[in-house]
This record gives sequence, structure tokens and C-alpha cells, in this order.
Amino acid sequence: MRYPSHITLVEVGPRDGLQNEATPVPTDVKLQLIQRLAAAGLTHIEAGSFVSPKRVPQMADSADIVRALQPAASPLHYPVLTPNLQGFDAALAAGAREVAVFAAASERFSQRNIQCSIADSLARFAPVLAAARQHGVAVRGYVSCVLGCPYEGDIAPQAVADVSLRLLEMGCTEISLGDTIGVGTPAGVRRLLDALLPQIPASQLAGHFHDTYGMAIANIVAAMECGLATFDSSVAGLGGCPYAQGASGNVATEDVVWLLNGLGVECGVSLEALLDASALISGFLGKPPASRVARALLAKRGSE
Amino acid sequence: MRYPSHITLVEVGPRDGLQNEATPVPTDVKLQLIQRLAAAGLTHIEAGSFVSPKRVPQMADSADIVRALQPAASPLHYPVLTPNLQGFDAALAAGAREVAVFAAASERFSQRNIQCSIADSLARFAPVLAAARQHGVAVRGYVSCVLGCPYEGDIAPQAVADVSLRLLEMGCTEISLGDTIGVGTPAGVRRLLDALLPQIPASQLAGHFHDTYGMAIANIVAAMECGLATFDSSVAGLGGCPYAQGASGNVATEDVVWLLNGLGVECGVSLEALLDASALISGFLGKPPASRVARALLAKRGSE
Repeated sequence: MRYPSHITLVEVGPRDGLQNEATPVPTDVKLQLIQRLAAAGLTHIEAGSFVSPKRVPQMADSADIVRALQPAASPLHYPVLTPNLQGFDAALAAGAREVAVFAAASERFSQRNIQCSIADSLARFAPVLAAARQHGVAVRGYVSCVLGCPYEGDIAPQAVADVSLRLLEMGCTEISLGDTIGVGTPAGVRRLLDALLPQIPASQLAGHFHDTYGMAIANIVAAMECGLATFDSSVAGLGGCPYAQGASGNVATEDVVWLLNGLGVECGVSLEALLDASALISGFLGKPPASRVARALLAKRGSE
Repeated sequence: MRYPSHITLVEVGPRDGLQNEATPVPTDVKLQLIQRLAAAGLTHIEAGSFVSPKRVPQMADSADIVRALQPAASPLHYPVLTPNLQGFDAALAAGAREVAVFAAASERFSQRNIQCSIADSLARFAPVLAAARQHGVAVRGYVSCVLGCPYEGDIAPQAVADVSLRLLEMGCTEISLGDTIGVGTPAGVRRLLDALLPQIPASQLAGHFHDTYGMAIANIVAAMECGLATFDSSVAGLGGCPYAQGASGNVATEDVVWLLNGLGVECGVSLEALLDASALISGFLGKPPASRVARALLAKRGSE
């Protein structure tokens, strides 16, 4: 079985992870978390979200975070979510050099999650992509519900291809394929990528798997076997699942790094240093990490 | 990717799972658990262990369990662990028709876990296997540490082959390959099975994966792709990891069933009915199931 020789991990904990955590996390703790993630070797760290602070209070300090990180002066990548032009302008003013937009492969999920059709969401992103091009800012496109939707059930691979191709035509440099509710298994991953890869090169695709049903690691293996080499993950499995209280959400970065170490695939991340980030945020939130690797290794640290 | 059309699950929760749980579980709760597991469609349920009740008090009622289950009159399989002839005789007297012995692929693990060398453990099993043959009792052989040992680290695939072949020669009908500390990844699983399968047919091998580092489901997928069609699992992920407090142990039956449903591979188990077993034992032990699938689906049940 062949795997890519190098995997790029996009750490989404400080944004996608924390935005679903109920406990408010102060700016300095977020910055310390990001600093530890960077120290562990993560080169792509999603740093914030320029959305309404009323809707997502946890992300209200994203401009402060970006200002402190100074993306233009850093060799690292600190993308932020910008759902509309207002958010993009604020992100740009704070110094962001990479942004992301969030679309869905499911009409009903789009309606319920961002209150508009897929077509309308793409129309809303058009000025963001135009402004980004003008300012030399890279734009990542998230596509959610690629392996299933909480409202529609199964999603046709071509529906995923259609919205992904539109986002790429509009100027996105990468599509992050989200199994938003974690219902996928390796068979579904292969079916999806068999449909996508004749239309979109693997280098423009990332896998974003949720571990709600414990399938994320197996899905990442299947996606790697199809040629994908970029995966999103969240330190300590931050984020949970907004669709089932107490269930797991984002796959944990620690678990993915453990997998890659075991497969002999390089990702440039030190698991030991990453545990310092897990311990920091789990300690702050006052709960054990959702990562099995972090729980096992931190328990060993504790007993030594 | 081709998978076997049918997978046999060997449910180890009532023995391998419960023996590591600190809370004493009364006989009637164990029997209710086994009854729910059987009602869910599990055909192979490890029911007890004929070891010293001083060493493993949780298993002290194994004879009562087996007597109540009446394996000779049941279409189901209720294997029990019998580490020596004394245990075998007691199991036979209670009515057991299938037993299991427990060896290791690692010398140091064998010494620390069962206080004898691998060769001495095989010598100890010889009279058990002879008596089993005489009474028409099937014997399963567990081999632990097949992908790594807490004391020796990496284990050579040929060491696993050697002890497995000896157990088969002695009369075992099936070898359960145990990743006892959960350190394996799909690459290690393939390496091991590439070494074993030219020497032992897949039909005589089972996979017993621990989820300590979240790799069990990916490892099961890899093993299925190599042709294995029998896997051990534990309802609610019962058992934890005796080598790291708070870490996960046996892969959860619910997670394996979810995987197989997603792959379109038949296993004859109803996930809905299985959740009744998860809810029973998790409720009794007063802690959430270690199974991600059970946590997500029971949370949904609770919110409906």
C-alpha cells in the first residue's frame, strides 16, 4: 500500500475547535495554544473567524489574535474564516494573508447552517474571492457534508464535485472536504474520491474528517491511499459535535500524528511537543482531551 | 477494495472487558448483558474465565454464568478462558463447550503477565488441549503483543508466526492476534499478515485490536483487506487499558458494527439492539461508554 511521502496537517483547533466550546477562552490562552502548536511543528494553524461576535462570541477576539500573530511576517500559515466581504475586510485590516470560506454540498444543510442556498452562498463568496485576488490573499474553500448530511442523508459525489469545482473556478486554491457529521467510512471516502479525482487534482483537495463514530483515522488512511496529502485536524479533538451532545467531533491532531508516525509518513510534527498544547488547552477547559493518543500518553506522563 | 462478505464478531466484553473493570458486576447483571448481546445478534460471546478468583475476583462466578447459559443446548458460542487443566476441568464441569488459552508473542510480556516463558506456557496448555480434544471441546488460542510489547517494543512477525503455528499444531482451531497495547497501525498490520498468511490460512486467524491510540478501526480495515474475517470486540469498549489509566482498551463492538454497516459488510448484528446492551452495562458501571458510536447514538436517543 502506497501513501504520500509527506502529509500537511491543517490545525483547526483554535478556530473550528474552540468555536464549539462553551467555556470562553481568553485571548492570551489562545495565543499560548497557537504558539505551542507552532512549536510542535504545525505550519498551518487556523487562527480565528471573522463572523458576528453575537453569533460566535468565542471568536470575537480574532482580530487581536491575527494582529498578534503578524501573518505577513511569519513563515507559518494562519488562515481565518471570512464568511462575507465585511469579515474579509476586517481580517485583511488585522493582517490576515489567508482566509477561508465555508460552503456545503447539501442544500438543506446550507439553508439551516448559513441560511441560504448553495448558489446564494457562492454568490456571497464572489466578492470575497475578488477582493482576496486583488490583495494577494489565498482562499481555502470548505465544503461540508461531503459524506452525508444530518437533514438529507446520503450526498451524491457529483454534488460535492459541483460545488468544489465552482469554488476552484472562483479562485479557491484548495478544497477541504468535510465529513461534517462523521458518518463516512472508508468505502464512502473511496467512492467520493473516485468521483472527484478525475475532475480535481489531489493536490487541491484536503480531507476534513470528524470522529463522531470513530471512523476518522480509517477514513484518512483511505484518503491517503487515494493520494490526498493534506488533512485537517484539531488538537485534543477540540470542538465536540454540535449535532450530538457528548459526542466527538474533529479528528484529534495527536491521533493523526500517531498514525503517520506508525505508517512512516513524515508530517513534521513532534508528538511530544504537541502534547504540551493538548495539556494546556485541556487543563484550561478542565476536561480530558477527546484524543485517545493524548489521553494514553498524558496518563503515562502522569505516572512517570 | 475488496472486503470479506461476512464478518464474525467475537464479543469479549463479558470476560476480557469486565475483568479489567474495578466495580464488581453481579452475576445477574452479567447474564442480562450476555442476553442482550445475544439478542443483538452476536453469536460468539466470551462468557467468563476459569482463573484464580483471588487474582481476578470479577470472574469468580464464571461457573454460574456458564451453567446458566447451557452452552451444550445453545446454538450460540460461549467460549471461556482456561489457563490450565484445573481451569479447564472446572469449565467442562460447568458445561463449557469452547475454551481459550492465552499465550504471548513476546518473551518478556509472557514472563510478566503469566509468569513463565512462552515455551513453558505452551507446555502448560498441552494437557488443556489434550483434554479438550478428548471431550470434543474447541480451543481458541490468544496470542498477545503481536504488534508491539510494553517491555520489548517491536515484535518480529515471525515470533508471532512461531507461537501461532505451535498453538495450531497443538490443536487450537483459531488464533486471535492481539494488539494488546494498541500500538499498531495499518502498515504494521499488513507487515504482520504478509508474514503470517503464507503460513496460516486467514480462516484460522482473528484480529483482536485495542483502541488505546485510536487505530483499531483502521487496523481492522487493513486486516479485512488482507482477508481476515473474524474480529474480537467489546461492547461499550469495556475493559480500558491496564497499561495506561484512563486510556481506551478493546475496540468497541458498536464502532466495528458501524464500520461494517458503512462498508456494506454483513455481520448479523443489530446496532440498535446492541445499544441496549451498551446502555445496560454503562448505566450499571456509572460511566459513559468508551465507544464513540454508542456515545453519539445514545446522546441522540436521549434528545429524542
